[in-house]
Amino acid sequence: MPAGQHERHTEPFAVRLAAAIRSRRTPACVGLDPRRESLPTVLGAADARDPAAIAACFARFCREVIDVVAPLVPIVKPQLACFEAIGPHGMTALADVITHARSQGLLVLADGKRGDIGSTAEAYAEGWLAGPWACDALTVNPYLGNDSIEPFVRSAEARGAGIFVLVKTSNPGSKDFQDLVCEGRTNFEHVAAGVESLAARTAGTGRYGAVGAVVGATWPKQLDDLRATMPHTWLLVPGFGRQGGRASDVRGAFHADGLGALIVSARDVIFAHARPEMNSGLADHQWQTAVDRACHDMLDRLAADTPAAALRG
Amino acid sequence: MPAGQHERHTEPFAVRLAAAIRSRRTPACVGLDPRRESLPTVLGAADARDPAAIAACFARFCREVIDVVAPLVPIVKPQLACFEAIGPHGMTALADVITHARSQGLLVLADGKRGDIGSTAEAYAEGWLAGPWACDALTVNPYLGNDSIEPFVRSAEARGAGIFVLVKTSNPGSKDFQDLVCEGRTNFEHVAAGVESLAARTAGTGRYGAVGAVVGATWPKQLDDLRATMPHTWLLVPGFGRQGGRASDVRGAFHADGLGALIVSARDVIFAHARPEMNSGLADHQWQTAVDRACHDMLDRLAADTPAAALRG
Repeated sequence: MPAGQHERHTEPFAVRLAAAIRSRRTPACVGLDPRRESLPTVLGAADARDPAAIAACFARFCREVIDVVAPLVPIVKPQLACFEAIGPHGMTALADVITHARSQGLLVLADGKRGDIGSTAEAYAEGWLAGPWACDALTVNPYLGNDSIEPFVRSAEARGAGIFVLVKTSNPGSKDFQDLVCEGRTNFEHVAAGVESLAARTAGTGRYGAVGAVVGATWPKQLDDLRATMPHTWLLVPGFGRQGGRASDVRGAFHADGLGALIVSARDVIFAHARPEMNSGLADHQWQTAVDRACHDMLDRLAADTPAAALRG
Repeated sequence: MPAGQHERHTEPFAVRLAAAIRSRRTPACVGLDPRRESLPTVLGAADARDPAAIAACFARFCREVIDVVAPLVPIVKPQLACFEAIGPHGMTALADVITHARSQGLLVLADGKRGDIGSTAEAYAEGWLAGPWACDALTVNPYLGNDSIEPFVRSAEARGAGIFVLVKTSNPGSKDFQDLVCEGRTNFEHVAAGVESLAARTAGTGRYGAVGAVVGATWPKQLDDLRATMPHTWLLVPGFGRQGGRASDVRGAFHADGLGALIVSARDVIFAHARPEMNSGLADHQWQTAVDRACHDMLDRLAADTPAAALRG
């Protein structure tokens, strides 16, 4: 095995994800998006004088968030941009956070929206799914075409990992190119057809494949449609909470048994210390309790208003 | 200024790029894509036992390539995937390589094809264009829409940096989504129209703006068309050399005065020690001489067969 390579998982990603969701009885995914200006004041990020000190704050913050949510959710999603933004020290902190999440029994989805061609795509795929970062899954941008996605699929299958391909993103500007009508259907439906084909191919005898799709919580109608046309595809649904998506908006992402979707919340959970409805009665140093409350709140709302209720059944 | 932030450049990126091209009398851009299996044997990468040792080989290799090409070309393009693939140590090596390239008077274009929404796009933009990485430009993926590109434009303008947005990539699979005909024109033409609009907006009274476009050397017809429809846009043209693009194929990317295009070669130059026509008479430890020969060969071919001849005029 090359230096820094990790062993293959025994079970495919889709099977491990379903098992983790059943075990925690929720499809919630907590996004790890550390921001210097949003961290609890007791961590001292505002006073950090150099990137190494900021990176240390990020690592400590994420490790403590992980300690709170590890018993509650199946998977966490580090946002690579937040760590990259502070330079090489940030990437060292990210590696530490990933290792800690794995050690606490969480699956780890690296949100990097990577995409490139040929051997460059292979480098990203090997690094994030097999090599030193050793994440369970990675988000991938499809603009470069199906041959740019294949290296990620090959690495994912070889490692027992997964990818989530951007299909219809949560932002208003997703209409600009994703919604263009091309030869009878939208551009994102063309991408979705390719993703479902890869999901079906990699599912083998299983229900879901190694290739999932990203579809924003802000598009309930499209979630309904894509759930129907992508039966073998896990849907990763960002935009729950701050970006305006409600539990009722994401109902369509699920199959009736509560599987088929991962619902992401980041800031609402990890920065819950700044939410009046979550920080009531807490001192600054008790910010982890606000994270715990906000995470439970998210789980309760998903169980109350979506087919994820079946997981508690 | 926040920790790790660099000062603004006095001149806009487009002006600095044109000056650097005129100074070196060539539009050639050398891609820095270190691969463990392709490095000169004397660097010992094959025997490196851990990521730190591989990263040290990458840094040494890129620094020595930079020392050869710095007097010859205006800009280098590190491929972020190659460094990410070996983990945090790779990112530390990348920072070292960027710093060295800047110290040798080169512009630095980070090839990361990043793209995300809102504050996440801001984090990428600040990190790569203003913060600790402090590159002169970054490649950006447009799939998420125009509002996902805006944060990169804002950071680029604030810093005197630039971005290059993927329009029509060099790979065969670029046909899958980029070539779909949507409401009367191809998807990539829709993206190109948005890019030219941003380029014109950011050009002010100058000729070119802070926003460029990536168009593969493998598409001579599209280069012609896009040069005509994107007058304020720098074109970054990968795929010269190994990917099949010849000097005559990239003629259309230029304006008559030899400006308007950057032509990228990576493996053909940096791994020239493995090319029989470049390594003749050289011992293994003289691999830098092969890089020098291959770089001169590229410069001569561009001067012989494209409007870049005017730069030597």
